[in-house]
Amino acid sequence: MRTNRLEAFSDGVLAIVITIMVLEIKVPHDTQPLALMPLIPVFLSYLLSFLYIGLYWNNHHHMLHTLERVDGPILMANLHLLFWLSLVPFATGWMGQNPRATAPAALYGLVLLMAALAYYILQSRIIAAQGSGSLLRQAVGRDWKGHASLGLYMVALPASLRAPVIAQAIYALVALWWLAPDPRIEKVLRDPR
Amino acid sequence: MRTNRLEAFSDGVLAIVITIMVLEIKVPHDTQPLALMPLIPVFLSYLLSFLYIGLYWNNHHHMLHTLERVDGPILMANLHLLFWLSLVPFATGWMGQNPRATAPAALYGLVLLMAALAYYILQSRIIAAQGSGSLLRQAVGRDWKGHASLGLYMVALPASLRAPVIAQAIYALVALWWLAPDPRIEKVLRDPR
Amino acid sequence: MRTNRLEAFSDGVLAIVITIMVLEIKVPHDTQPLALMPLIPVFLSYLLSFLYIGLYWNNHHHMLHTLERVDGPILMANLHLLFWLSLVPFATGWMGQNPRATAPAALYGLVLLMAALAYYILQSRIIAAQGSGSLLRQAVGRDWKGHASLGLYMVALPASLRAPVIAQAIYALVALWWLAPDPRIEKVLRDPR
Amino acid sequence: MRTNRLEAFSDGVLAIVITIMVLEIKVPHDTQPLALMPLIPVFLSYLLSFLYIGLYWNNHHHMLHTLERVDGPILMANLHLLFWLSLVPFATGWMGQNPRATAPAALYGLVLLMAALAYYILQSRIIAAQGSGSLLRQAVGRDWKGHASLGLYMVALPASLRAPVIAQAIYALVALWWLAPDPRIEKVLRDPR
Repeated sequence: MRTNRLEAFSDGVLAIVITIMVLEIKVPHDTQPLALMPLIPVFLSYLLSFLYIGLYWNNHHHMLHTLERVDGPILMANLHLLFWLSLVPFATGWMGQNPRATAPAALYGLVLLMAALAYYILQSRIIAAQGSGSLLRQAVGRDWKGHASLGLYMVALPASLRAPVIAQAIYALVALWWLAPDPRIEKVLRDPR
Repeated sequence: MRTNRLEAFSDGVLAIVITIMVLEIKVPHDTQPLALMPLIPVFLSYLLSFLYIGLYWNNHHHMLHTLERVDGPILMANLHLLFWLSLVPFATGWMGQNPRATAPAALYGLVLLMAALAYYILQSRIIAAQGSGSLLRQAVGRDWKGHASLGLYMVALPASLRAPVIAQAIYALVALWWLAPDPRIEKVLRDPR
Repeated sequence: MRTNRLEAFSDGVLAIVITIMVLEIKVPHDTQPLALMPLIPVFLSYLLSFLYIGLYWNNHHHMLHTLERVDGPILMANLHLLFWLSLVPFATGWMGQNPRATAPAALYGLVLLMAALAYYILQSRIIAAQGSGSLLRQAVGRDWKGHASLGLYMVALPASLRAPVIAQAIYALVALWWLAPDPRIEKVLRDPR
Repeated sequence: MRTNRLEAFSDGVLAIVITIMVLEIKVPHDTQPLALMPLIPVFLSYLLSFLYIGLYWNNHHHMLHTLERVDGPILMANLHLLFWLSLVPFATGWMGQNPRATAPAALYGLVLLMAALAYYILQSRIIAAQGSGSLLRQAVGRDWKGHASLGLYMVALPASLRAPVIAQAIYALVALWWLAPDPRIEKVLRDPR
């Protein structure tokens, strides 16, 4: 099976996930500018999740770019990743409506952690399928950015039980860190040596 | 007509079906961790339906892979399959909110049964269009897995009226059974002899 | 501009329209089988609209198949068609919840009429762009099926004000009529003489 | 990275944005024709936003047509544009339900302004990536239409605080202006000299 239909399906799911989150920003009944004030945390959590889904889409795209054929386990690992990402709108809605509560901040981190683990599993599965000389392995190297993100989520989880704002700051920092362009895969693809 | 636009439309519908189901998991007003407890059956039924739609997407993809051209009856059989799959979110929502009630468990099974029948009709239609030497017929063989699934749904339907949990266990087992990779089509495609 | 991105965008919109209609079938709070009884008209109107959108997708696909390049007016005519089709979920919801009321049945017919007109405009625009020897003109011929459908909708509109059930029967009959495969375009494409 | 997957993802997001807006037109409980009267401003704001998203899709398509490869900054600029466009359904819903209120009219204009700025950034980024002899630069020229639109939004913002209807007239005029086909890119693509 070629990768293009897997890409198309993943693109579809991610495009819907990123867009239905906006349905959580409920239109206020009031028409005063101040009516938007309580929506600010909802908006900020939407922005954060938009970034995350956009980054996943971007990295997912780069990763599949190194692949020519898809086997059953890769399909399942991809579905597993999409499952956790599909829970992002729920976690976003709960955290956005309760920005200072501990449980929503922890759940948001848990969903991010599970999605990151699912991404890691998919990546490992692709590297294994490519065998020695895997283009993706060369691109990813020791993948310390991926490992560090997993570690940061694991720090954020207990932190959220103490102070949600610390966990939320960690979530934002990880997103900003990934926003910085990652030249690894592009470099290897250009000059695979 | 080539298969690629049929695939694109089916991918679109399946991607939306799999994603809008998550809208049934309503964000709770409470912020306590315990507020998530009543959502557990909703979550589990979402997980089950996510698996089913993912498996249908996967098998649908393999099936269309054996096909080059699409005729009118195949288009209609495909639309028929999409219709039943589009009802999965409704059945999932009802069963998830009432995990111990008989009617929702029965309706869920009915939708699965109708989708499986629609899949079977589409498969037969493609085999007929391919004529003797059909690649899909070779791949599917006597299709005892497909037939057994139909039989299991038919067992689950009356069972759900007695004990919903038995029907739900059957639904889960069928999904897990299909999760195990099915090497038939891949093998035939690789070595079509 | 090639047609493929126009197809992709149209497919996306139609796939979403066909799927979000199911959100109008609200999950009942009751768990008795009888709780589904009031949903029967909602379900039937969903089924009817599913057929219509599926048929539009199918015919739209065939029509664009005769086209190689897209110009500005065709883009706008296509957007115009998508606009009216995007109102189908609203009209479906209103008619499904009030199956015996006149205004919802009339509005449903109005949306069908406007969509059919928009389709006709798009078709005329493509025929004009193809110039003499237009493949689509040969395929469509005198297009009496299209004209008759427009006429039937125009009959159904006043009928709905008297007896909604008559208008609804006309809507269903037109859909069933189009369900019968239309060999015109396929024949011309195969043997364009 | 080639542009096709970027196009597919953008098409998906825009198709969903354009379609979920219709969910803001709530099915009325009443069945009288007059029940549709209060929906007229909701409908008109839906129509306006449908036009805007359709025009963005159209221009976005033309713009990417001049591009062969996508780099990281272009990806991010594209995501930035999609973010603002994803807020259109929210702004549409608020303005549609409160057509005579100042804050919703101002917010709608703000979202349009931010989307136009994001489009401008994406366009500049693509021109920079294409270097001297940029096809897009030739096509866009001095881009006075783009600049004038930005200026009109900036006029509409303070106007909305005085009289929402003036701002809404400006939004409609800008849309109609862009509806008129823009031959620039098509001409340059045909005859790039």
